[in-house]
Amino acid sequence: MSKIISGFSKFTKQEKIDWLTENFFQNPSEIKQTIQQYWNTNADLQNLHDDFIENTITNFYMPFGVAPNFVINNKEYAIPMVIEESSVVAAASLVAKFWSKKGGFKTEVLGTTKIGQVHFMYAGHKNDLEDYVNKNKTELYAATASITKNMEKRGGGILDIVLVDKTDKLANYYQLHVTFETKDSMGANFINSCLEAIANKFKNDEIEIVMSILSNYVPECLVRAEVSCKIDDLGVENPQKFAQKFKQAVDIAKVEPYRAVTHNKGIMNGIDAVVLATGNDFRAIEAGAHAYASRSGSYSSLSHCTIDDGIFKFWIEIPLALGTVGGLTALHPLAKFSLELLQKPTARELMQIMAAAGLAQNFAALRALTTKGIQHGHMKMHLQNILNQFNATEAEKEQIEKYFEKETVSHSAVVEKLEEIRKLKINWINFLDESLIREKLEKLSSDSKPIFGKMNAQQMIEHLSFVTQIANNTVKTGLFVSDEKTARRKPFLDTDNELSQGFRPSFLSDEPNALQFESLTEAIDDLVHQVKKFENYYKANLKATIVHPFFGELDYDYWKKFQVKHFTHHFKQFNLL
Amino acid sequence: MSKIISGFSKFTKQEKIDWLTENFFQNPSEIKQTIQQYWNTNADLQNLHDDFIENTITNFYMPFGVAPNFVINNKEYAIPMVIEESSVVAAASLVAKFWSKKGGFKTEVLGTTKIGQVHFMYAGHKNDLEDYVNKNKTELYAATASITKNMEKRGGGILDIVLVDKTDKLANYYQLHVTFETKDSMGANFINSCLEAIANKFKNDEIEIVMSILSNYVPECLVRAEVSCKIDDLGVENPQKFAQKFKQAVDIAKVEPYRAVTHNKGIMNGIDAVVLATGNDFRAIEAGAHAYASRSGSYSSLSHCTIDDGIFKFWIEIPLALGTVGGLTALHPLAKFSLELLQKPTARELMQIMAAAGLAQNFAALRALTTKGIQHGHMKMHLQNILNQFNATEAEKEQIEKYFEKETVSHSAVVEKLEEIRKLKINWINFLDESLIREKLEKLSSDSKPIFGKMNAQQMIEHLSFVTQIANNTVKTGLFVSDEKTARRKPFLDTDNELSQGFRPSFLSDEPNALQFESLTEAIDDLVHQVKKFENYYKANLKATIVHPFFGELDYDYWKKFQVKHFTHHFKQFNLL
Repeated sequence: MSKIISGFSKFTKQEKIDWLTENFFQNPSEIKQTIQQYWNTNADLQNLHDDFIENTITNFYMPFGVAPNFVINNKEYAIPMVIEESSVVAAASLVAKFWSKKGGFKTEVLGTTKIGQVHFMYAGHKNDLEDYVNKNKTELYAATASITKNMEKRGGGILDIVLVDKTDKLANYYQLHVTFETKDSMGANFINSCLEAIANKFKNDEIEIVMSILSNYVPECLVRAEVSCKIDDLGVENPQKFAQKFKQAVDIAKVEPYRAVTHNKGIMNGIDAVVLATGNDFRAIEAGAHAYASRSGSYSSLSHCTIDDGIFKFWIEIPLALGTVGGLTALHPLAKFSLELLQKPTARELMQIMAAAGLAQNFAALRALTTKGIQHGHMKMHLQNILNQFNATEAEKEQIEKYFEKETVSHSAVVEKLEEIRKLKINWINFLDESLIREKLEKLSSDSKPIFGKMNAQQMIEHLSFVTQIANNTVKTGLFVSDEKTARRKPFLDTDNELSQGFRPSFLSDEPNALQFESLTEAIDDLVHQVKKFENYYKANLKATIVHPFFGELDYDYWKKFQVKHFTHHFKQFNLL
Repeated sequence: MSKIISGFSKFTKQEKIDWLTENFFQNPSEIKQTIQQYWNTNADLQNLHDDFIENTITNFYMPFGVAPNFVINNKEYAIPMVIEESSVVAAASLVAKFWSKKGGFKTEVLGTTKIGQVHFMYAGHKNDLEDYVNKNKTELYAATASITKNMEKRGGGILDIVLVDKTDKLANYYQLHVTFETKDSMGANFINSCLEAIANKFKNDEIEIVMSILSNYVPECLVRAEVSCKIDDLGVENPQKFAQKFKQAVDIAKVEPYRAVTHNKGIMNGIDAVVLATGNDFRAIEAGAHAYASRSGSYSSLSHCTIDDGIFKFWIEIPLALGTVGGLTALHPLAKFSLELLQKPTARELMQIMAAAGLAQNFAALRALTTKGIQHGHMKMHLQNILNQFNATEAEKEQIEKYFEKETVSHSAVVEKLEEIRKLKINWINFLDESLIREKLEKLSSDSKPIFGKMNAQQMIEHLSFVTQIANNTVKTGLFVSDEKTARRKPFLDTDNELSQGFRPSFLSDEPNALQFESLTEAIDDLVHQVKKFENYYKANLKATIVHPFFGELDYDYWKKFQVKHFTHHFKQFNLL
């Protein structure tokens, strides 16, 4: 069946979900529940979020955290961070606190110029083109009057329109390189609208416009953030050594692109978290920052470190074209909340806050890398995620967290430890040991209550006996289990895993069977008898196999493996182990 | 008061929110409501999401959309996209459909090698170092045995360990450059754990480890996606011209970094949307992609276009280091959902799906840019957001959407149009025009029902008369309105805005007053009389001011402004305008 569809975008949200779940999933109703559990109960709020993009089916939750204790130019901030990577917020908070006692972050905006270009082809004489541009410059500005009116009221607008000859790179290729000031708005729509109006005015029979579009490369929309202190005030063990290794790590990122990429990636962890939280566009920020990092011809570090006269200085320069008005900033209630938490910054202030967040992140990463290694802290944070993935109980979490205080965390080490703990707890019962079995079962009375399930004590014993009678060839079930199912199920008996509490094969009825014996004691005697008969049957028929109603054809060894699990399961049901 | 706090991370979620709202907001209870309205009603699910990072206070909603109709290597996909930018999903869907009829996307994985490095300082002879590395290589591998065990079972592990001399860039600086195959996991934790184990084994008195860390620059973890068809099959108006301009746009992005950055930003719109939806790390992907774009020494396009023998061919090569197991992929229920929607791809398959999504996005952007311009489509999508921001009604939306079918959308143009529509609808009543007032009011009867509020027709007329008696100095209220309140409220009278339906100043009682007159007619006569008295009072006392119980001290002009609004408000209440 073809999964190509027409008119999908015109479907209602419910119709879209119906089509998707029917065409791509085996279990549509479960999947629908997954989708719907993320809808907001407030229909108006959900509609607002649905309208942000197209074909919205639900909300993807990104964790919204807060890093307090940032001091930036002597003002205190708690910085909102939206990020899925654990340890980013923790690292930012720790570093913010660390520097808050050493003068905090000092930041300044180095420029706010934004850029757009009209790309066009022109095959004539360059002099004629220059004349044409010069003669029409006023007209080009005038063509944007209706668009720039409001921006000019706010102190922004078009700064300059310059003709650029690019014919050395591509035949006939020229640009109008236009610079803008867009104040507190990111300005993408404003710039693009201006450029299209300029291009429309500019084009003629000889000038073919290819496209008109803003650039996300904004090397003149630049901000600087710095921390510094006396080396002796760093407040770490062996501060001289710390500072020297830290500087080495920065210097390596300056000369080695493989390292620089990840060095800058760490910076962007901090910056993007604030970009997302404030409703800005992280693809634009990422593109601009990494292009800036490669401007020398070799991809390099965005941050820098010096040690002069006993002063440790660490700073970043990064282009950040941001908005605090327009776009999602006003529309997404949590973007609005973020800006309010930041005390309603201007775009210039937000540039500085983000630069500080990026520098903090970089400081945290380099400090960890050059001292304990990145995995130490990172995996501690990740530990929780692994434990949740394996549905660890609170008790298991506590035990494992304690264990890994001294051990190196790795995914497999955590899983192994968890399995070990879980196995330890399984006190497998030797069902062939008559005296042990009797000793345990004699603790039962007609009042004994199961921990799970519906059976009473005698029903449980008679159930074990019944299954043992299948195993010893007394009860013939006549059941057949396909090879395919057997192949899938049987390997479970080779594992150390228990039968789960919810396990009930379809051949068992929902309700316990009626009792066969007059008393618990008689039932116990019968069970012991059937177990002996089981041993005897296989002594006489060494190679025999008998079909287990769920696991398929089993020989003596596999039946014993099953019986251990089954007896253990039901003994635990009555808290006998 | 200082906003520096100790032990914040140890606070409960509620304590964190209390501290934040008390320290950074004027209106803590409203802000708490904003935060809490985004919590999931299922406490277990909310706990899961809270644990992903630190200091989580709520969930940031990112829109989760779906782009259907992708055909990739003859298999059909609906691609999950998490992105806040409008038009990304719409563009992907359109382009997917477009190419689905022309053979779809052809993709291939060119490599899956990942990279990590041990960075160290060594001041001795290089030959000795080389000997040391060669003699100990087996030991270095062996040091990672417990970490690589599971990865090797899955067919991955360490591929090679190579000594690299970087002393030409930085004195004494060398690396162990380690290559990895990590199969379906992104492998960050695996690689870092291996590197730390290697470094630990490797270090000696002469070798000082600076740091050990994976690289997000992965030029050998590369994927290619392509679309192609005969130019004549492009199915657009003037296909030769279309293909030629499209190729020009790509060629420009190859030679001009300002353009390349935004060209690639558009590609990343598509890729990051899938990265987020599948629980991968977009900072890692972004860093790797942009560094790859700059590898020649000049930042350039990630996509390429040729026109040969009448065949249009458009393709991308991009490094993508992804995981489909581990990390958030299994933990975030919607990341898991995304992978299921994609039919449980391997990491290799996911690379190809993302590359196709990126190429589709790039195709959409270039098609728009080289034909109608980017703003045409983009602003149409953005139109909805602007309308929502200004709480446009359904009727207003319909009218404005229709208007902008032919007009250029810009933020200010939409706002202007909306204001224009809203103003048009206000049919201000000239309350000084006696015959007009009488004509309108005579339509009322004792049965007339108000559209809002509790007053009947006669009560409404007597209410207008009462306020007019304040205005004409007949009724003395003795009320005082502070200068501060007057300064805040009075400017409203200068606007074109109406009194809102919910408006009821506190000096008005909740219930309508008892009637003063025997009939509607008498009440109308009284109102007309009071209005004349109002005119006469101010003719006699040109400079007089009278305190309005809500707006404060008003002169004749301001009283008239108020009366127009007040009469219009109540005439609309009875549908008289």
